[in-house]
Amino acid sequence: MAQYKMILDLDTGIDDALALAYAVGHPDIELIGIIASYGNNLTDVTAQNSLNLLDLLGASDVPVFYGASHSTTTDDFTVMEVSKTIHGQNGVGDVEVPTSPRQLAEQSGIDFLIDAAHEFKDQLVYLPTGPMTNLALALQKDPSIAQLIGQTTLMGGALTVPGNVTPFTEANINQDPEAADVVFRKQESLTMVGLDVTLRTLLTKKHTAEWRALGTQKGQLYADMMDYYIDAYFNLDIDKRGAALHDPLAVAVAVEPDYVETLPLNMKVTTDRVSGDYGRTIGNTDKLLDKTTSKAAVLVDQDRFVSDFQQMMLTVLSD
Amino acid sequence: MAQYKMILDLDTGIDDALALAYAVGHPDIELIGIIASYGNNLTDVTAQNSLNLLDLLGASDVPVFYGASHSTTTDDFTVMEVSKTIHGQNGVGDVEVPTSPRQLAEQSGIDFLIDAAHEFKDQLVYLPTGPMTNLALALQKDPSIAQLIGQTTLMGGALTVPGNVTPFTEANINQDPEAADVVFRKQESLTMVGLDVTLRTLLTKKHTAEWRALGTQKGQLYADMMDYYIDAYFNLDIDKRGAALHDPLAVAVAVEPDYVETLPLNMKVTTDRVSGDYGRTIGNTDKLLDKTTSKAAVLVDQDRFVSDFQQMMLTVLSD
Repeated sequence: MAQYKMILDLDTGIDDALALAYAVGHPDIELIGIIASYGNNLTDVTAQNSLNLLDLLGASDVPVFYGASHSTTTDDFTVMEVSKTIHGQNGVGDVEVPTSPRQLAEQSGIDFLIDAAHEFKDQLVYLPTGPMTNLALALQKDPSIAQLIGQTTLMGGALTVPGNVTPFTEANINQDPEAADVVFRKQESLTMVGLDVTLRTLLTKKHTAEWRALGTQKGQLYADMMDYYIDAYFNLDIDKRGAALHDPLAVAVAVEPDYVETLPLNMKVTTDRVSGDYGRTIGNTDKLLDKTTSKAAVLVDQDRFVSDFQQMMLTVLSD
Repeated sequence: MAQYKMILDLDTGIDDALALAYAVGHPDIELIGIIASYGNNLTDVTAQNSLNLLDLLGASDVPVFYGASHSTTTDDFTVMEVSKTIHGQNGVGDVEVPTSPRQLAEQSGIDFLIDAAHEFKDQLVYLPTGPMTNLALALQKDPSIAQLIGQTTLMGGALTVPGNVTPFTEANINQDPEAADVVFRKQESLTMVGLDVTLRTLLTKKHTAEWRALGTQKGQLYADMMDYYIDAYFNLDIDKRGAALHDPLAVAVAVEPDYVETLPLNMKVTTDRVSGDYGRTIGNTDKLLDKTTSKAAVLVDQDRFVSDFQQMMLTVLSD
């Protein structure tokens, strides 16, 4: 029986699609639901992408729940141009993944998360790969989940390296710094998997050629998606050597923590719009001597992770 | 025989005075010279303070060399008001330390450092507690010292916590970000002891009362200096609980590295004055997958260090 009940909160997204495949394939993970978030695209689009990909991966029993469609401080959301450049107009590299006939779950993603926290407690892993809006809203509605959820492992933030939106701000945190600040200050057993480590885990077209060579529909479609992403990394000069495995690394760390070394640190997100570092994830000086409730991944065994990730993908995409 | 030949590059300064006492007292350290820097005060003043304190501590055989009097990008230097508030008008808490009859060495601090690098190589510890100007100038004159100096352990910077001058910039780095950037990029075997750890090591008036109770002139004067510093921390609301042992922690880490946990990371200092984070010490994304030449202290065993520091001070100040 799988050791972890996992909820992925995805703004799907190419690397979200990889995270989904990795979670579906991992024997220690029971994926109990997906929450759809705005971020790399609109919530409507990311929800449909998750449904389509789950069906493609043979995981059509996993429900998808509708999450927030905009940040806690705005009334709507427009997809950033750079998101379209990196993830395509449709969020999955303009690759046509067959449309799932399934519907979204009726319950809201916020309520689903709260219920799961009470039901599964320590066994529950909540893993957001986009904005922190859904968890912030859930914490507002039921503060007790801060202690109940077994672990929250998030992809986002940048502690020891610059951000990728501003010199201080990473893209997921940038979508809703106020929500992220609530999460960093309140949520216990929090692990940040940020640019500090994800930028070190690079996938190349040598890897995707192996997916394509499997001769399966899944292998073909995933290779097409990932090649779009690798090209975007090259063209935007983010990295000429390959594309970062942001979201799948977070999933891997949640269930195999020894891929990374972590720094125990009470963190906050700057929400002061005047100070010049709005949206920065940084240590909370007021709590330097307090017991820590969060930690940040600061080193990663990148060679081992990329190799293991590739093996997982070859298995998941093979049948 | 002492294991380490140490050069302290001090902008003396109250916590510099503590670093000096700690180094004089440590059996593994042979203090081969002090370089005087601008920073907490003018170089003339910090040089005289170091001479006076060395004599007070019975270490009048240690020479003091004149270092840079201003940053590498300016033609002069004015002491910041906040430096006077923290360290007093005279740099040592307006305490009257008896004036040393000694003169400064004739050789420049830059040349002294270069010569020592060639003479002592791996045995040499270079430890700046102020701006990085002197090392940057020495590197410009003789780039080979980047590899020659056994270790460079600096007090400065802030990686996982905000700065203390701006949200990004720590005071020592702020004096000369361009020089610090040269040091971070070029100097090998570099350890940064920054606000990440030093803000966790707090000394209180309970400690200084024990110094005063020794009944010695040294104990009295050092307690008066440190109380001034503790009061400044309280009045400026930096920390109401005590004052940080910035500079002495760096000396301790240089010879007893296990006081801290370090993160291997190739770092840089932002010298772009437009980006909004001028003077920030941060990981160099371009070198995330390269061999590391530097590391940052990110955790400290604060209780053990403060206790050991206090024992050292009681010994040094007792006779």
